[in-house]
Amino acid sequence: MANPSILILAGDGIGPEVMAEVKKIISWYGDKRGLSFDVSEDLVGGAAYDVHGVPLADATMAKAQEVDAVLLGAVGGPKYDVLDFSVKPERGLLRLRKEMDLYANLRPAQCFDALADFSSLKKDVVAGLDIMIVRELTSGVYFGTPRGITTQPDGSRVGINTQVYTTEEIRRVARSAFELARRRNNKVCSMEKANVMESGILWREEVQWVHDNEYPDVELSHMYADNGAMQLVRRPKQFDVIVTDNLFGDVLSDCAAMLTGSLGMLPSASLGAPMANGRPKAMYEPVHGSAPDIAGQGKANPIACILSFAMALRYSFDQGAEASRLEKAIEKVLADGVRTADLMGPEGGKPVSTTEMGDKIIDAL
Amino acid sequence: MANPSILILAGDGIGPEVMAEVKKIISWYGDKRGLSFDVSEDLVGGAAYDVHGVPLADATMAKAQEVDAVLLGAVGGPKYDVLDFSVKPERGLLRLRKEMDLYANLRPAQCFDALADFSSLKKDVVAGLDIMIVRELTSGVYFGTPRGITTQPDGSRVGINTQVYTTEEIRRVARSAFELARRRNNKVCSMEKANVMESGILWREEVQWVHDNEYPDVELSHMYADNGAMQLVRRPKQFDVIVTDNLFGDVLSDCAAMLTGSLGMLPSASLGAPMANGRPKAMYEPVHGSAPDIAGQGKANPIACILSFAMALRYSFDQGAEASRLEKAIEKVLADGVRTADLMGPEGGKPVSTTEMGDKIIDAL
Ligand SMILES: CC(C)[C@H](C(=O)O)[C@@H](O)C(=O)O
Ligand SMILES: CC(C)[C@H](C(=O)O)[C@@H](O)C(=O)O
Repeated sequence: MANPSILILAGDGIGPEVMAEVKKIISWYGDKRGLSFDVSEDLVGGAAYDVHGVPLADATMAKAQEVDAVLLGAVGGPKYDVLDFSVKPERGLLRLRKEMDLYANLRPAQCFDALADFSSLKKDVVAGLDIMIVRELTSGVYFGTPRGITTQPDGSRVGINTQVYTTEEIRRVARSAFELARRRNNKVCSMEKANVMESGILWREEVQWVHDNEYPDVELSHMYADNGAMQLVRRPKQFDVIVTDNLFGDVLSDCAAMLTGSLGMLPSASLGAPMANGRPKAMYEPVHGSAPDIAGQGKANPIACILSFAMALRYSFDQGAEASRLEKAIEKVLADGVRTADLMGPEGGKPVSTTEMGDKIIDAL
Repeated sequence: MANPSILILAGDGIGPEVMAEVKKIISWYGDKRGLSFDVSEDLVGGAAYDVHGVPLADATMAKAQEVDAVLLGAVGGPKYDVLDFSVKPERGLLRLRKEMDLYANLRPAQCFDALADFSSLKKDVVAGLDIMIVRELTSGVYFGTPRGITTQPDGSRVGINTQVYTTEEIRRVARSAFELARRRNNKVCSMEKANVMESGILWREEVQWVHDNEYPDVELSHMYADNGAMQLVRRPKQFDVIVTDNLFGDVLSDCAAMLTGSLGMLPSASLGAPMANGRPKAMYEPVHGSAPDIAGQGKANPIACILSFAMALRYSFDQGAEASRLEKAIEKVLADGVRTADLMGPEGGKPVSTTEMGDKIIDAL
């Protein structure tokens, strides 16, 4: 049987640096655990724009459709801020999400014991935190039409975006959330603004329908998204799985990410429908951005990107045990006090470089 | 000259209880400070539905248009959850906002020294916090059309809401933010998702235009709303005034509110254009909801509602000094250790009732 295939799109800023460490980990799995992958690489974001004049070339898009998993680093940088909306680095990312139809964005917010002090929240509020936000990723107001800016005869302008959700778009992402909940603490909280948005009413009703007809064993609750933001800050451990739409998910998952205090630690998975081989279409990426301010200096924390590969092992390659092995190795390295610059506390100490962190994790494996 | 007029809409749940304390304060100002108001009262929300079959009667709407300020308690309750969208208690509130054209929602997030321990955030992160979120309140995706749910021939459904912003809608709320900043620390941060939404691009450009042409002396920055949620959790004191749209403002202001740890403390003002007498159209309301679980038990904290009246003194009646007097009286009462049930720490003690809290504040005045 052919090796499973991975397309690496390292992107911009610190993307290539953190991805270099992931490549070391992938090689380790081939050498030491007999888990070999066919790895290819290509460009995305500003890096693709520089070469092709677009943030994602058609040929790259075609490759992404064929592989078993895409690993993405990060996109964007000040150099590209002046570009037109249509060719901005983010459009490359959005095109991947949309054309691969990666509708379920899994964003774990987990607080590592060794790093609980990093949170701006009190330790007892976040220690042991382990929630999973499932964000709908290919529809809603970031994708709906009509959209655009029009100029009126008097010179004033109107900006329009459209939030559209269909029954099926809601049901499929709800199923992802319920499936995850069954393997976790069996609780789903769905968030919308059904009190002011009809698309929120539809969201609530369809999630309830999936629950009643397919997952009656999972505990389901509904919460308005504004209250959701409050509750995440007030008592985040009340949640297990949260399912919400593209826009609320964007804001709430970043809010939840920051509860953990260490953005450099958080991975994500974006999953679509199963392919012919049974694997879901999938892209994995760290939650952090391209951090142009520290790019090229060996300061970046590669852990979020490595944990994204752990998610790939779990969700694309059915290697849950190997994923746990990798996660444990990272916990060990952190418990040993190894820290990249972003994880340095006020007590100081000497930070390790991106490469050193990768090496330490391989040692711990 | 006639006394300034106030319409009290106490609404549902704890609304009438907390408003009773505000009425005591209003009387105190008439008796002791020669500041008399013409106060009338009417129904809103579920209370209005019970009598009129709608959450805001036309006659009430007409009164609201005529007075100098509306004070609103809270709307909603489980009894009304079954009602159709069009007559739910919230629609009464939304109608007031829309027809009075209260486009600027001022939501201060302030951390009271005596209560800093209540926050789920570390004390040094929130102590002394004083930010002002200006949320656009009458446009955006909560109001735009087309909207609704349609059923397809195959039985599946589509839910639609539309985010629409015009040049003028953005500029006027931006002006409110810049004006406030000038009286505070002279900094405005505008939040949107210009990287994925054209309405966000328009937002950013128009806010920048108002800055460059009318308020070049105020420091302006722009931030994506997802990053905004992160930064609010990570380092909230970096902000002075935040200006953002209706939906992001809804979520971000609730997130910011929770940073302070005491929702029962937070007021809000919703302001529109100046009326003939120079006063802005205005409605003042606490940020907390109707709290049906504790309604009628004398447990509610009236401070948010009283602080909303303080905002009325400041923004509608040009009585900034009297507003400060009232705010100081509240600080004193808190410093003296007087606490309603919601403000009881783990160390225990005996909470005061809603009425007792009102009395203590009057004593301190
Ligand atoms: C980069 C941007 C387009 C993206 C989004 O808004 O979806 C990012 O914020 C994210 O959360 O993945
Ligand atoms: C009650 C509801 C309609 C309202 C809103 O969403 O605007 C509330 O959440 C608020 O923030 O004032």
